[in-house]
Amino acid sequence: MLSTAMKEIVANSSAIRAMFEEGKRMAAIHGAENVYDFSLGNPNVAPPEKVKQAILEITNNENPVFLHGYMLNAGYPDVRKKISGFLNKRYDLSLSENNIVMTVGAAGAINVVLKTILNPGDEVIVFTPFFGEYRWYVKNFGGELVIIPNNKSGDFQPDLAELENALSPRTKAVIINTPNNPSGAVYSEETLKDLAAILDGYQKKSGTSIYLISDEPYREIVYDGIQVSYPAKFYKNTFTAYSYSKALSLPGERIGYLTAPDELDGFEEISQGLSVANRILGFVNSPSMFQRVAAECVDITVDVSIYEENRNILYENLSKMGYECLKPGGAFYLFPKAPGGDDVAFCNAAKEHRLLIVPGRAFGAPGYFRIAYCTKKETVQNSLNSFEKAIKG
Amino acid sequence: MLSTAMKEIVANSSAIRAMFEEGKRMAAIHGAENVYDFSLGNPNVAPPEKVKQAILEITNNENPVFLHGYMLNAGYPDVRKKISGFLNKRYDLSLSENNIVMTVGAAGAINVVLKTILNPGDEVIVFTPFFGEYRWYVKNFGGELVIIPNNKSGDFQPDLAELENALSPRTKAVIINTPNNPSGAVYSEETLKDLAAILDGYQKKSGTSIYLISDEPYREIVYDGIQVSYPAKFYKNTFTAYSYSKALSLPGERIGYLTAPDELDGFEEISQGLSVANRILGFVNSPSMFQRVAAECVDITVDVSIYEENRNILYENLSKMGYECLKPGGAFYLFPKAPGGDDVAFCNAAKEHRLLIVPGRAFGAPGYFRIAYCTKKETVQNSLNSFEKAIKG
Repeated sequence: MLSTAMKEIVANSSAIRAMFEEGKRMAAIHGAENVYDFSLGNPNVAPPEKVKQAILEITNNENPVFLHGYMLNAGYPDVRKKISGFLNKRYDLSLSENNIVMTVGAAGAINVVLKTILNPGDEVIVFTPFFGEYRWYVKNFGGELVIIPNNKSGDFQPDLAELENALSPRTKAVIINTPNNPSGAVYSEETLKDLAAILDGYQKKSGTSIYLISDEPYREIVYDGIQVSYPAKFYKNTFTAYSYSKALSLPGERIGYLTAPDELDGFEEISQGLSVANRILGFVNSPSMFQRVAAECVDITVDVSIYEENRNILYENLSKMGYECLKPGGAFYLFPKAPGGDDVAFCNAAKEHRLLIVPGRAFGAPGYFRIAYCTKKETVQNSLNSFEKAIKG
Repeated sequence: MLSTAMKEIVANSSAIRAMFEEGKRMAAIHGAENVYDFSLGNPNVAPPEKVKQAILEITNNENPVFLHGYMLNAGYPDVRKKISGFLNKRYDLSLSENNIVMTVGAAGAINVVLKTILNPGDEVIVFTPFFGEYRWYVKNFGGELVIIPNNKSGDFQPDLAELENALSPRTKAVIINTPNNPSGAVYSEETLKDLAAILDGYQKKSGTSIYLISDEPYREIVYDGIQVSYPAKFYKNTFTAYSYSKALSLPGERIGYLTAPDELDGFEEISQGLSVANRILGFVNSPSMFQRVAAECVDITVDVSIYEENRNILYENLSKMGYECLKPGGAFYLFPKAPGGDDVAFCNAAKEHRLLIVPGRAFGAPGYFRIAYCTKKETVQNSLNSFEKAIKG
């Protein structure tokens, strides 16, 4: 009854579903506060107060027929203008509202881009560790995922030497995600410039266009004063997929946008394609009221210090216990090596200590595991004893 | 640069896009109030006051981390329970929250269903006139649209004799839409029972499963006290796609749901598939706050009498002028025969009289045109002179 393609996807999704069920089962036995659920990237930090004020003001003052009605499939022009103005100021760009499409989160944005550009059999390159959903997004449109393993140095910067080997006439796109889920790595400016040079060089040599899709939902979630470079600055064929899910703690509202600059190869037809794809994939448009809320809150973010404190507690304590881990510069994930080397075995054993963590192979990186520390501080503190037991085996 | 599939879709979408541009151009010349834009189904009736109250109350009282956070991909269980309870009471069903998936409108719902069930090459049957977007929804997943022309009687009930001829071992689904866009026809209980009998008979004979996808965004928009039969009552393999876009005038908010009853062939795996499809198509979940708003407003609708008045003015006057037209029982469209027979020529000529109307071939029904009368009453009244001129040629 299920389509053949969906059978495989449902089977592969069942691990995380099983973890969800397991978490509920464990909470029933041990009490929710005694289960340390680090499995999901669901922000626990409240949205800024201004979000609430914006919802109330907009609801009270805006004409409801306009506020809740259809607009252009690309979104309200004034909202797109405000966002492009913000980006121009912050990153010294020259975008207009014509370069912005409001989307159903970054997941919606990536699907819209892939629908627009992919022919069946086209290749899309990703670097491990990567957000596992890219697998299905690429498959939705008949694309082939080409996976470049990480460079083993543990810095989780993309392996650019391998990128040179992986490029082919069938390469249509490269997806990057910085700050990265699951590693927390922030790609350096040097990395991004080198990446751009390689793609530019290959484009010139082959006469093809290769699009960079920069997935940036964690752009604002950074620590230690790190500046996140803006990938689109270095490579003109860049689509940027953004979401307010993490910056404003609104993941359930499905509000984000994508940018496509004028300089993009084939901009005119691509731009039409993005609007049409947004419509025919069934999104139609990004949720209307939250478009206006996002415009009001374009320059604010959640209190990142709460995540930073969780990161510090976990990183310092786990390092002392003997876990090997990159100190993440952003996002709200820690991605340590799995003691013993087998990530699935380690995550299963960790359940005995009431720890819910995700095996690295879900992100194309066996031998690691992911801790989503977007939780209460008490959960982090109370979990330390369990992490200690888990590494002792 | 654009994918091959998208090139065709963008080219075919340009007619409506061109109309939109034309409308703006004409408004600039003649003034917006002198252009009679009946092209889009964007409700002009305000949402019920309770929608606003629900937004304010929920925003003021709900924990924002919960309110704006991720939930199950299928939606909040309590919201789904409330909706299933409402449907059970109204239609004497026995649905639970497990039979409901909250979606990004009905367009999202249909895409989720098709992703879940379609293998490439599977056939999906529609009856003219039909909502033109079905073409692309079916193509998104490699399906083949099989179009059954209307029966020429002008009642716009589906031609069931032709359905018998069109069924094949490759038929995976049939899409119906009642009350219908663009005809305004409400399928009778007899029609639905006969349709069910044909599908049941073919299933038995062939040993295949054929799913009925009932697209019902206009379920509440009916006139003259007409009772809209609930198609899922008559055929167990029915997915119902619903949207609050028209019932609550919230089209921009992208809030709807789909139902899949326990009796559906392969329910267990289909049910998992629907959740996973909602996630991997990039919807992830239906917008969270408006899920809760919908639950609060589950049993109310906009003031339908405003549409009914527009319908009456247009139907009576156009009939007197000599237009041939079914008196629509629901939705907010009139679908008259194009005077002269050529719908495209008629709609182009109508622009000279500042009328924006859509050729029937956009809905698979050349020779007709669609009037979307979800406009201000003044627009309807002031347009009559132009309709008079248009039929005189």
